[in-house]
Amino acid sequence: MATAAEATAMRQAITLAARALGATSPNPVVGCVVLDAAGTVVGEGYHQRAGGPHAEVHALRAAGDRARGGTAVVTLEPCNHTGRTGPCAQALLDAGIARVVYAVPDPDLAATGGGQRLREGGVDVERGLLEDEARAGNIAWLTSVNSGRPYVTWKYAATLDGRIAAADRSSRWITSPESRADVHRLRAESDAVVVGAGTQRADDPHLAVRGIEGAVQPLRVVIDTNGTAVTATSRVLDDAAPTLVAVADDVTTELPDVVRLPRTGTGLAVPALLDALHRRGVRSVLLEGGPTLAGAFVAAGAVDRVVGYLAPVLLGAGPAALGEAGISTIADALRLDVTETVRIGPDLRITAVPAAPSSPKER
Amino acid sequence: MATAAEATAMRQAITLAARALGATSPNPVVGCVVLDAAGTVVGEGYHQRAGGPHAEVHALRAAGDRARGGTAVVTLEPCNHTGRTGPCAQALLDAGIARVVYAVPDPDLAATGGGQRLREGGVDVERGLLEDEARAGNIAWLTSVNSGRPYVTWKYAATLDGRIAAADRSSRWITSPESRADVHRLRAESDAVVVGAGTQRADDPHLAVRGIEGAVQPLRVVIDTNGTAVTATSRVLDDAAPTLVAVADDVTTELPDVVRLPRTGTGLAVPALLDALHRRGVRSVLLEGGPTLAGAFVAAGAVDRVVGYLAPVLLGAGPAALGEAGISTIADALRLDVTETVRIGPDLRITAVPAAPSSPKER
Repeated sequence: MATAAEATAMRQAITLAARALGATSPNPVVGCVVLDAAGTVVGEGYHQRAGGPHAEVHALRAAGDRARGGTAVVTLEPCNHTGRTGPCAQALLDAGIARVVYAVPDPDLAATGGGQRLREGGVDVERGLLEDEARAGNIAWLTSVNSGRPYVTWKYAATLDGRIAAADRSSRWITSPESRADVHRLRAESDAVVVGAGTQRADDPHLAVRGIEGAVQPLRVVIDTNGTAVTATSRVLDDAAPTLVAVADDVTTELPDVVRLPRTGTGLAVPALLDALHRRGVRSVLLEGGPTLAGAFVAAGAVDRVVGYLAPVLLGAGPAALGEAGISTIADALRLDVTETVRIGPDLRITAVPAAPSSPKER
Repeated sequence: MATAAEATAMRQAITLAARALGATSPNPVVGCVVLDAAGTVVGEGYHQRAGGPHAEVHALRAAGDRARGGTAVVTLEPCNHTGRTGPCAQALLDAGIARVVYAVPDPDLAATGGGQRLREGGVDVERGLLEDEARAGNIAWLTSVNSGRPYVTWKYAATLDGRIAAADRSSRWITSPESRADVHRLRAESDAVVVGAGTQRADDPHLAVRGIEGAVQPLRVVIDTNGTAVTATSRVLDDAAPTLVAVADDVTTELPDVVRLPRTGTGLAVPALLDALHRRGVRSVLLEGGPTLAGAFVAAGAVDRVVGYLAPVLLGAGPAALGEAGISTIADALRLDVTETVRIGPDLRITAVPAAPSSPKER
C-alpha cells in the first residue's frame, strides 16, 4: 500500500509531467518526485524534451545523496531502455533508491521491463497509484503507442446553434478572447496543428502558438490536396514554427517541406496522413480545420477527443461545425461522453471523448 | 435591515412560489412566510391558482393568532387590489402584522400600492430583500407585465454540432431520457407550448405534460398557417390538455378552437400570435417547434430565454437547430449570456438570455 505522502507526491509528479505536454514527443510526459526514507520530498523532476534527461534523472540529481534508501514516485514505469539516455531503472538502482511507486506500466515494448529490473535489483516496487489520473495526463502518448498513430483532438468554435460563421462567412469573432487564448494552450500542448485547404484559403491562418512563454511550437500542417492553397506568401510559411504541406502524390509543387499522400474521393487519405505524421514523431494532433476536414477525420474514426468552444450566440444560418462524416441516420451517430465542461469567459468549453463501445448506441 | 431569519424566510418563500410555476397565470407566482415576533416561522403559503387565495392569505390562515405583532415575508409587494379576492395589504393589517418584508415591487398598475397602504396603516415595510432571486423566480410574469406579451422560452435539443436530426430526419433519440423528462418540467412551468406546422406534420406531437404529478397542463398551440397540418386524428386534439390552432385569417377550417392571424411572408405574424395568447391569459410560452418557427421568433425579437439540451453526439449532416432568423453577418448575431449550465444525465442543459444591450456586440 502506498502512503499518504506517496499519493501526495504522485499528484505532484502528475502536475510536473503536464508542464511538458507538447514538448517531449516522441517520448511521453513523465514526472518524478523523490522522497527520503522519512517521506520528505528531496527531489522533483520531469522529462522536458526528447533527448534530454528523463524525469527520474532530474529528480535524482536534485535529491543527491538524500535519495539513498528513499522512494521514487513516478507517473510512468521507469524505462529499461538505452536510447539517447541510459535506462532509468539502472539510474534508480545506482542512486540506492529502496522503493519505487509508479502509476502506469510502460506499454512501449522497446522500453518496458523497468519494474522487473528494479525488483531484481532488490527494490520494493508498487504500481498503479493514481493510475487513472496519470493515464489521463499521458493520454496522447499512450494512445499513440497503442494505435500506432497520433492522438487526434478536434477543436471547434461555434455558436449555440452549431454555426462556425454567419451566412456571409464572417466569423470574427464568434468566441471570446478568453477562448481564443485557450486555443493557444491547446496548440502548445500538441505536436502538430492541422488545417485543410478550405481554411487555408479562407483564413490564411498562422497556426503558431502566441502568448505562452516557453511554448514549444507545433508542426503546422496544411492538407493542400491539389497544392494550390499554400502559396509563397502564406503566413504558415514564416519562421515562427515548422510547417509541413500534405499534397496528393501526383501534384507538382515548389514548396520546401511536403509530404505526398494518396488521394481519396474527397481529399487525402486520413490514415496515410496520420501515419506520415507518426513517422515524424508526432504523437498528438490538434485538428483546427473546417467542417469538411473534421468530417473526414470523424468518418475515418480518427477523432480521439472533441474540444468545443460554444459561444452564447445565435445565427440561424451559416456553415455548421461538422461536415459530412458518412453518418446518415441517428443509429450511426458518433456517441461521445462528456468529460469536462468549463466556462471560459462568456463561452463554454466542452470536452468529450468517443463513448466506450459497450455503452448503449441509443438512449 | 432585514434579519437573518427574514432572509431565510424569503428563501423559503421563493421556493414556495416556484411550486406554482405554470399554474397561476395570468397572476404571478408568490410565496409568503409569516414569522412571529420572536422570528419563528408560524405560517407558510403560496398562490396556487388564479382565483384562489393569495400567498399572504394562505400564510396568515396557517399562522392564525400567532401572526399578530409578527412579520410577513413575501416575494412580491402585497396587492392593493380587489379582484376575485380582496387586497392582501388589508388582510395583513387585519391580522395585526407589524412588519412586512417584500422582495419585488408590484409593477402591475392595477395592483400596486400595497406597500404604501401598509405604511399608512402603521406597518414597518421593507422592500428589496433577495430581490434578484425573487425576480428570477417570477421572470415570466414580470416580463409579460412590462412587455405586454408572454415571456418566451425557446427550447431545443441538438447534437454538439447543432443538428436536431440526422440526414434521413431520424431523431429518436438524440438526447437522453433524463433530458426528455426535464422538458416535461419545462412544459409544466409554462402556460402554453407552441409548435409549427412542420413539427406537427413530421412528429404529430402530443405536447401535454407526462410524468409530473399535479402538473397543470399547458395550452397546446399549433401554428398551422394554412389549416392543413392539424387533422381530426392529430394527437394534440385529445383531451389531455386544451389546444388552440392558429391559422391565417383567410383559411376555412372545421377545428373547434382556432385563432385567426394575419399572414406574413413566411407564416403568421409572431407579434399577433403572442398578443392573442396574452389576451387569453398566457404569460409564459415554451417554443418547442423546429428551426423555421424558432427562426421566426428570433427574427421577431421574441425570444426571452434559450434552453438548449446538448447531447454528446456528432452527426455531420441533418437540419440545424435554428433556421433563418434574418441574421446575415456576425455583427448582427444574437448575443446571449449563459445563466446556467447543468449536466442532465449524459447531456448538457445550457440556459441563456439575450445579452443586455449595453454589452459589446463584438468580442
